[in-house]
Amino acid sequence: MSQPATTFAADQAGSVGTVETRYLDLPRPVPLDCGRELHPVRVAYETYGVLSPRRDNVILVCHALSGDAHAAGRAKAPPPESTRDGFGAQDRDSAGGKGLGWWDGMIGPGKAFDTDRFFVVCTNLLGGCRGTTGPSSIDPATGRPYGPDFPVITVADMVRTQRAFLDALGVERLAAVAGGSLGGMQALEWAVRYPGQVDAVVVIASTHALHPQGVAWNAIARDSIMRDPAWQGGRYYGTGRAPDAGMGVARMVGHVTYLSAPALETKFGRRLQFADDLRYTISEPEFEVESYLRHQADAFVKRFDANTYLYTSRALTYFDLARQHGGQLTRALDGVSARTLLIAFSSDWLYPPSASQEIEQALRALGKPVELEVIDAPYGHDCFLLEEARQTPVIRRFLAPGGAA
Amino acid sequence: MSQPATTFAADQAGSVGTVETRYLDLPRPVPLDCGRELHPVRVAYETYGVLSPRRDNVILVCHALSGDAHAAGRAKAPPPESTRDGFGAQDRDSAGGKGLGWWDGMIGPGKAFDTDRFFVVCTNLLGGCRGTTGPSSIDPATGRPYGPDFPVITVADMVRTQRAFLDALGVERLAAVAGGSLGGMQALEWAVRYPGQVDAVVVIASTHALHPQGVAWNAIARDSIMRDPAWQGGRYYGTGRAPDAGMGVARMVGHVTYLSAPALETKFGRRLQFADDLRYTISEPEFEVESYLRHQADAFVKRFDANTYLYTSRALTYFDLARQHGGQLTRALDGVSARTLLIAFSSDWLYPPSASQEIEQALRALGKPVELEVIDAPYGHDCFLLEEARQTPVIRRFLAPGGAA
Repeated sequence: MSQPATTFAADQAGSVGTVETRYLDLPRPVPLDCGRELHPVRVAYETYGVLSPRRDNVILVCHALSGDAHAAGRAKAPPPESTRDGFGAQDRDSAGGKGLGWWDGMIGPGKAFDTDRFFVVCTNLLGGCRGTTGPSSIDPATGRPYGPDFPVITVADMVRTQRAFLDALGVERLAAVAGGSLGGMQALEWAVRYPGQVDAVVVIASTHALHPQGVAWNAIARDSIMRDPAWQGGRYYGTGRAPDAGMGVARMVGHVTYLSAPALETKFGRRLQFADDLRYTISEPEFEVESYLRHQADAFVKRFDANTYLYTSRALTYFDLARQHGGQLTRALDGVSARTLLIAFSSDWLYPPSASQEIEQALRALGKPVELEVIDAPYGHDCFLLEEARQTPVIRRFLAPGGAA
Repeated sequence: MSQPATTFAADQAGSVGTVETRYLDLPRPVPLDCGRELHPVRVAYETYGVLSPRRDNVILVCHALSGDAHAAGRAKAPPPESTRDGFGAQDRDSAGGKGLGWWDGMIGPGKAFDTDRFFVVCTNLLGGCRGTTGPSSIDPATGRPYGPDFPVITVADMVRTQRAFLDALGVERLAAVAGGSLGGMQALEWAVRYPGQVDAVVVIASTHALHPQGVAWNAIARDSIMRDPAWQGGRYYGTGRAPDAGMGVARMVGHVTYLSAPALETKFGRRLQFADDLRYTISEPEFEVESYLRHQADAFVKRFDANTYLYTSRALTYFDLARQHGGQLTRALDGVSARTLLIAFSSDWLYPPSASQEIEQALRALGKPVELEVIDAPYGHDCFLLEEARQTPVIRRFLAPGGAA
């Protein structure tokens, strides 16, 4: 299982063309932080570009909470629910529906992650609902979906799964690991856990430990799902009911945290849906922003599994490099050998620049090669999906032979 | 119906003592912005201090989303659900349960609203669930609670009701109207709607129009309630079920918006509930902040009516002085004759200082007497309930004979 997934002729300049998600079953159980092992584990993945004969040009791209393995190109046979709505790239989602990958603007010939040079791999994360084993997969012990019996996983577990997957693919060493948000946590975990096996990490709009307000938002989103009677303790599969109502609220909460207040001001202001007249309604959307949020909620619940949301949200709140290493970030990062590029966005209040600055300072104190780029942009956390043009030169320079940091 | 509510002997220095909520039935229907009229309307209220013979020392205090008429003193017979948890003063709520009014630190002898000088009146707002007519009141047309048949009300409707209530009390003119958050909106509406009848307004942590992110948070909170099947289209009274699950989520969303991210950092950090060990649980709180939010949710649903939350939340998103006056804030404020004191808090991101600055600039452009005090304090929107010591000298100076502005 080491050949790259087929890349068809590009249908536009700079595109990786039409791609297909593939699947790989790991040969051995994955050990988990909670003490359990998981087996079998299937990994959904896509690849873009060509693996070099020395297998030294691999970039692993890690997705965020609601993403999947389809990071670039046009899906060969896009499933109805396939979208680019990785973590909140709502503009494209509504504009497109063309089955483009969630980071298509960043991966391809001449792009930030240049497929003329690199063999880019993206896997659906452990616990996912888009092909990789997760709570909606069949539990071999019962023959039914795991549901709440799925083990509680961590970012480290996701990374162990990626490591096992790359082993099976015949890839020992990574030229880079890159990701935004939860994807950036995975990149950091890679640098810490497998220091000799990663040359560079690109950590975008991420953190070494989510701040308490972020923990709170995630708790509210999860509670909203679990308070929905249709959740049924997580055993909703096959019942004809799913916690769509609670998931919708979770998505709306998340969505507002991914955007900045000024971005909402610019995009919607206080415009009403129907001319300038109030309709005096409680149950119907009155402001454009209200209608927009409902639309986002409805679109999301159609394509995403509620239990995967719960497990993934829990994993990203657990992630805490310092706690995992005796309480000190410098101790956690002491063994890192990869060059590190951190990118943060000025308006991101969920994963604020200060978090990236803390990582930068710790690495610098340790004498490690690190570069931090804070991009002044108004779209909040979603910038990591939207500000492709401004991230591209920074990343290309960093990944160039003899690159910065 | 013009005598003050009985004030018993103070049980502590600076306290208004033990007080009782009283009720007044308005003699005439209240006309509403939506075109309907409401009748009968009962108003729950409390008063503190003594009405002067010339009836010229009245201060109306307006409460926020989840407050009530019990603004100061100790409730004579506190109903089990009575708390000081006005808009999110969660610290006192959990510490107290002593039936103290939600602004007890601000109202009393020698306090910001000095009952040695002023006769302070607080009413439960129209649409409320604490004694004033609202969606849980009996609809005379059906003999059952209004539920969703209650008219959609506005801040102007709340103020019209207060005006009618004060008429019935024999009070023509107000020395001041004061309030925080939604209470501040009511104070602004008073200054605009009844310019000749208000000498001064004190507008704290408020705005002339909630920004779109605030509109979004409120929409999410309302959606969370309405998506709860126990809401039953708003007709849950008497069914033995209420949308407690959705209300809990609504409260948690609100609660996080009332606090600042740094306040959460200081108060909780990323501390776990149980020592330093992860328990690997999805359904149980793991972080202290998660447990705290659930506690807040549980406490709130026991004392507050879901439909009142919906109606009041809608009213505060509708409030838009500029829209109500041809799109221009200066036109809205053109007739104001009251002196205006604006207080904002540096860490309040729901009602940010910039909103108060817009009001200040508009009043200043019109040559109106206005004073803005931005208090540098870390607790977010909740500052208006928590930072009594720092608001007090500002307000006392403003309300002093020949006061500032």
